[in-house]
Amino acid sequence: MSLPTRQPRSGCPIATTLDLVGDRWTLVILRDMQTGKSKFSEFLSSPEGIATNVLTNRLEKMVKTGLVRRKAYQKRPLRHEFLTTKKGQALLPVLQEMCHWGNRFLPNTWVPPESFMQAKAE
Amino acid sequence: MSLPTRQPRSGCPIATTLDLVGDRWTLVILRDMQTGKSKFSEFLSSPEGIATNVLTNRLEKMVKTGLVRRKAYQKRPLRHEFLTTKKGQALLPVLQEMCHWGNRFLPNTWVPPESFMQAKAE
Repeated sequence: MSLPTRQPRSGCPIATTLDLVGDRWTLVILRDMQTGKSKFSEFLSSPEGIATNVLTNRLEKMVKTGLVRRKAYQKRPLRHEFLTTKKGQALLPVLQEMCHWGNRFLPNTWVPPESFMQAKAE
Repeated sequence: MSLPTRQPRSGCPIATTLDLVGDRWTLVILRDMQTGKSKFSEFLSSPEGIATNVLTNRLEKMVKTGLVRRKAYQKRPLRHEFLTTKKGQALLPVLQEMCHWGNRFLPNTWVPPESFMQAKAE
């Protein structure tokens, strides 16, 4: 699936948000960042088992759409980590509502730690 | 993209929710239902311009995953409409948070009517 589209499908804030995060991985990666992960290998090690090429693709798009920024954490060899921007962090309430819904309607889903559920974006 | 997957990718309520609604259209169709649309032609007429085959596919999956139920509204010829279940309606807070986020970070998105933003799922 190609994300994001060049121009919004409509002026609807739901449709336009989904132009950016309407896929199976983007919000999972934001979840990981919210819980302290920032390195490529850390995202790869998450239990969902994202494929390397999908992770590369999603991170690139998240940088392009301003949800995430790239920051060098090592010079030789040069290595980057990925951090949420204010815009990316502000999706936290969407993640939290998905947790509420998932815990209520999807059997055997984990109950997230209070620290995640009570966290507030700037 | 094939939705939903046969088995959840993990026990994470976010990942598992995205197994059901992690695509560009499912939540747009739920938005339409929330605002009173129920017929195939009504979903087709929305400004995002969903393709007929994509709409058919998504509605089938939404029935299968229990977000939506099919109800006959006419006998000859037989015609069905699509209504949200309690499970589908309960995604309303996710839609509302996407609206808040979209209005804050995505230029020129419509501000939804108060009736939508204040609505409460059962």
